[in-house]
Amino acid sequence: MDTGRELHDFARALYPICRSITGNGIRETLGLIGERIPLRILEVPSGTQVFDWTVPKEWNIRDAHVKDSTGKRVIDFQKHNLHVVNYSIPVHAKVSLEELTAHIFTLPEHPDWIPYKTSYYKETWGFCASHNQLSSMCDGEYEVCIDSSLEPGYLSYGECFLPGEHEEEILVSAHACHPSLANDNLSGLAVATFLAAQLARRKNRYSYRFLFIPGTIGAITWLAQNKDAAKKIRHGLVLTCIGDRGSFHYKKSRRENSDIDRAAAHVLKQQNPAGFLLPFSPYGYDERQYCSPGFDLPVGCLMRSVWGKFPEYHTSADNLDFISADALSESLSVCASIFDLLEKNRSFKNLTPFCEPQLGKRGLYPSTGGSSPELEVNARLWLLNLSDGTNSLLDICERSGLPFAVLSEAADVLAHNGLLELIS
Amino acid sequence: MDTGRELHDFARALYPICRSITGNGIRETLGLIGERIPLRILEVPSGTQVFDWTVPKEWNIRDAHVKDSTGKRVIDFQKHNLHVVNYSIPVHAKVSLEELTAHIFTLPEHPDWIPYKTSYYKETWGFCASHNQLSSMCDGEYEVCIDSSLEPGYLSYGECFLPGEHEEEILVSAHACHPSLANDNLSGLAVATFLAAQLARRKNRYSYRFLFIPGTIGAITWLAQNKDAAKKIRHGLVLTCIGDRGSFHYKKSRRENSDIDRAAAHVLKQQNPAGFLLPFSPYGYDERQYCSPGFDLPVGCLMRSVWGKFPEYHTSADNLDFISADALSESLSVCASIFDLLEKNRSFKNLTPFCEPQLGKRGLYPSTGGSSPELEVNARLWLLNLSDGTNSLLDICERSGLPFAVLSEAADVLAHNGLLELIS
Amino acid sequence: MDTGRELHDFARALYPICRSITGNGIRETLGLIGERIPLRILEVPSGTQVFDWTVPKEWNIRDAHVKDSTGKRVIDFQKHNLHVVNYSIPVHAKVSLEELTAHIFTLPEHPDWIPYKTSYYKETWGFCASHNQLSSMCDGEYEVCIDSSLEPGYLSYGECFLPGEHEEEILVSAHACHPSLANDNLSGLAVATFLAAQLARRKNRYSYRFLFIPGTIGAITWLAQNKDAAKKIRHGLVLTCIGDRGSFHYKKSRRENSDIDRAAAHVLKQQNPAGFLLPFSPYGYDERQYCSPGFDLPVGCLMRSVWGKFPEYHTSADNLDFISADALSESLSVCASIFDLLEKNRSFKNLTPFCEPQLGKRGLYPSTGGSSPELEVNARLWLLNLSDGTNSLLDICERSGLPFAVLSEAADVLAHNGLLELIS
Repeated sequence: MDTGRELHDFARALYPICRSITGNGIRETLGLIGERIPLRILEVPSGTQVFDWTVPKEWNIRDAHVKDSTGKRVIDFQKHNLHVVNYSIPVHAKVSLEELTAHIFTLPEHPDWIPYKTSYYKETWGFCASHNQLSSMCDGEYEVCIDSSLEPGYLSYGECFLPGEHEEEILVSAHACHPSLANDNLSGLAVATFLAAQLARRKNRYSYRFLFIPGTIGAITWLAQNKDAAKKIRHGLVLTCIGDRGSFHYKKSRRENSDIDRAAAHVLKQQNPAGFLLPFSPYGYDERQYCSPGFDLPVGCLMRSVWGKFPEYHTSADNLDFISADALSESLSVCASIFDLLEKNRSFKNLTPFCEPQLGKRGLYPSTGGSSPELEVNARLWLLNLSDGTNSLLDICERSGLPFAVLSEAADVLAHNGLLELIS
Repeated sequence: MDTGRELHDFARALYPICRSITGNGIRETLGLIGERIPLRILEVPSGTQVFDWTVPKEWNIRDAHVKDSTGKRVIDFQKHNLHVVNYSIPVHAKVSLEELTAHIFTLPEHPDWIPYKTSYYKETWGFCASHNQLSSMCDGEYEVCIDSSLEPGYLSYGECFLPGEHEEEILVSAHACHPSLANDNLSGLAVATFLAAQLARRKNRYSYRFLFIPGTIGAITWLAQNKDAAKKIRHGLVLTCIGDRGSFHYKKSRRENSDIDRAAAHVLKQQNPAGFLLPFSPYGYDERQYCSPGFDLPVGCLMRSVWGKFPEYHTSADNLDFISADALSESLSVCASIFDLLEKNRSFKNLTPFCEPQLGKRGLYPSTGGSSPELEVNARLWLLNLSDGTNSLLDICERSGLPFAVLSEAADVLAHNGLLELIS
Repeated sequence: MDTGRELHDFARALYPICRSITGNGIRETLGLIGERIPLRILEVPSGTQVFDWTVPKEWNIRDAHVKDSTGKRVIDFQKHNLHVVNYSIPVHAKVSLEELTAHIFTLPEHPDWIPYKTSYYKETWGFCASHNQLSSMCDGEYEVCIDSSLEPGYLSYGECFLPGEHEEEILVSAHACHPSLANDNLSGLAVATFLAAQLARRKNRYSYRFLFIPGTIGAITWLAQNKDAAKKIRHGLVLTCIGDRGSFHYKKSRRENSDIDRAAAHVLKQQNPAGFLLPFSPYGYDERQYCSPGFDLPVGCLMRSVWGKFPEYHTSADNLDFISADALSESLSVCASIFDLLEKNRSFKNLTPFCEPQLGKRGLYPSTGGSSPELEVNARLWLLNLSDGTNSLLDICERSGLPFAVLSEAADVLAHNGLLELIS
């Protein structure tokens, strides 16, 4: 079966669930992810102190609506879970249109779309509606009802750990707290889940840790409870907005020149020359936490269209049509290539460093002199020339301009012929 | 009253005085400056050895003219003090036009302008005239008279020292030796004087030292007599040609990346995007001496039009019309901004370096999730992210691309909230 | 007599000889070079182990041809020595056209040209012909005859050592193994020979070592037998394809910023602004061996058109018309300028580092103030400013943008006046 289709189907299965940073929506989501990969689900009690933050009360919602005087549901949570401001406290009241309007968010510039709003840390209630909906509401009394609960409970997150040959880890982090929004971030959940499934099927040099967490508070909670484990992270990627048809954008880690940054740059150059590299900034998704100065982890963020820069962002238009099977599949492939590069990024030592070794007698060089070397021969020469103990394959790749895959294969051939020795 | 107008008026008051590197002209000039700011006037005897140089004899002039055979003053020092080659020795003689012409400088390409010429270290005499003047002189005998004196005396300069919280100093240096030339350098004298007056009215972190000195020999004299004091100079600016209507030019210090260079670059980018940064070169004004290798002080040079690059330079066309009140006022403001930046350039330490602190509970973060942060919020995030003890506000300013003023205010807010601690 | 003409005549004298990596052709070539410069000729026995390589058997050839059934020599070594695959083993046989064709190389895209082919390390035989020649050959039986020998003997190379004031050496290396090919590399042999002759006539700071060697195996042999001597090499140039009318190309050493790289860049910028700088790559001529990681010598490669990038490369069209007297002469001059720069690249210390010294009293500064300094004055100021013990003349040249020659002369003037002291 086609991988892109499978990815899209998985996003489709997750789409209707009303997720938030806590509650049954995220639990149900983790349950579906756990059907595909080995997933440990952790529950952290409300009130737990995590650095400067406190795990909030758990939020759940059953129903919500605004009824007009005829009893008609003019705004209905059952029709779209974006209709309620996420984390709204329960309310049941009769209000005038004027009072109600102060609690309704719309997008006048996109009158058919419903915005996505949250209020995690300030207790309030509200509705989101299309501007057309609001415009069609007449003066009069309305019944508002939000059947939600905000009570001590738990923050839930999922962790998939795949042990590798080394203790050193590659982190993949995707936020799982958004309700019916496809690109942000069902795309990230789907790609991360499929990546984990792929990696679980093979032996890896690195260990991998996949986190499916509520944004911000989830990353902070994980870091607070795993301060030592975080030290093992050698490379990391935050995945978000990775399913739309836009060009790739890779936002660099705080260090700006870590291996993950260079690996992502190389893979984009090779596979998606239209892709962009963005400098680090402290605003964004959970790379904000991983790259906080106390941790300063080499964690970048891979996107297609950049969050906040496309009109559908945080609206009901970020739906299943906005993401495509092809884009999801390509994103999965780019991630896999980045990790493949990191897996294969090794350093070798030239065992015959004085002059070139005679490649010809080993069948590694054309016997008739010509004018331009094959890619493979060129890769062999670059590897021999730069493998002086200070350069990794990625270093050689950057200096030579040759594709990493060609260099990696050539290094294996040279090592097999006793010309290079693996040093790390 | 309008500052630009005041600056121009001050330049106007200084304009008629016939200054030179020694003598009563510079004394009178220092006297007028001393009416506005606390100024210590120093007198260094002729013959004093200052490094490789010797303080020259003192030059004074009362009158000079060239009379034709009818007794008419065809060149008259009383009409313009540029008419005499500065530092001309006394002469009184009758000469033919041919002999005279060998002692007259003109500007054929600008036939109405009088050039400015000096001969400080070679004893000679000469006149400067407009080319039209020279052309209209017929053959015949002329009486030349320069009623000057060149005798042992003193080199005079003024120093305004404003003690600050720290011993470390910011140096402002302006040459005060040019006669009736407005941009070069009455503009520098006026701006430096007004800057000193402004800084004297407030408490400063740095101490400030303003030098009003004859060019070259004055800077050398000060450095020779203040070799230890020079070590306290942390930043410095030479001010010249700062009153015309041209774009700003900042010439970097020899180090090219000192804080003054970066501060000037930032202020120009913010306030005068049309401004230019010039690399250091060892030719120019007194930055030549401050940046000599034995001192290598971080002293740049701020100009509007670059000396030697505008046709009016060192001619009678560099007059009071060539400088404008608006330009002077803007120059004062740019200088003040540069010093303000240096005053406020501090380093902070993030006291909650592990993950972001919860800004929302302190009212420092919008409670409803949106898509792009306010400038202030963005500044807070950059400050928290980069305040790891290695970055000054200027470093953070350069990396983030945010205006220094916004970052500085945001740092104060974060420090007030206990999130940042001042470390230097 | 005109140097360009002499260079071209020397190439003409060498052109008819059938050279190879061993044998009498290269011996005869070295004999002609040795008539012009002091040349030591070394003979290394076949079978000698040189790092990973073995000195091959010696190859010599007397005659070769392909005769058609009428006895007509349709391919004739006597007409052009490219007609035989270099290092062909002896053969004498009758073959069908089909069998023969498998042993014939042509260039269909240039039907009049004969390609150049070698098979040093795989024993085989073959002919090269113009494509028109091959096309005109009818079916039938052909007699092939290669009257060559491949037997234990010697690898021959020539070394011209010119002792200088210092033990440190500048290396010039040119391969001498190509048969009748003018640009590659009679141009290199001629320019190197004339350079050596020029340098032998004067006193030099550096010692010079000129190597006239078979490509690859010759450089490897020299390095293997002179591992310690190689440590004295401070700068080096491989010369090839230096006689055609194309723009200069300088390929940097592996270090990319060694003095030879910077010197070549400066000379090209000054003398041949159309010249190009190429990054290092491990494919090319003998810089491959000198820049192998065990040696990592600062050796670049100077070319006009780049080998392999012009259609005449390694064909009979690389003949005496393809190179010109003017181009050879200009190449000689560029090489001489590069070495001249290296000879004169010294470091000085400013003996009056505090402020500028008074140049005027030493006649080194114009006595009348002007607006832009002479080149010489500017050079003096730059030298005084940057001669703090950390900068060579080449460093000062790069920072100031001034021509090296002007700086070098100015440094001598300042040193003569006691203002600078030579430190290295």
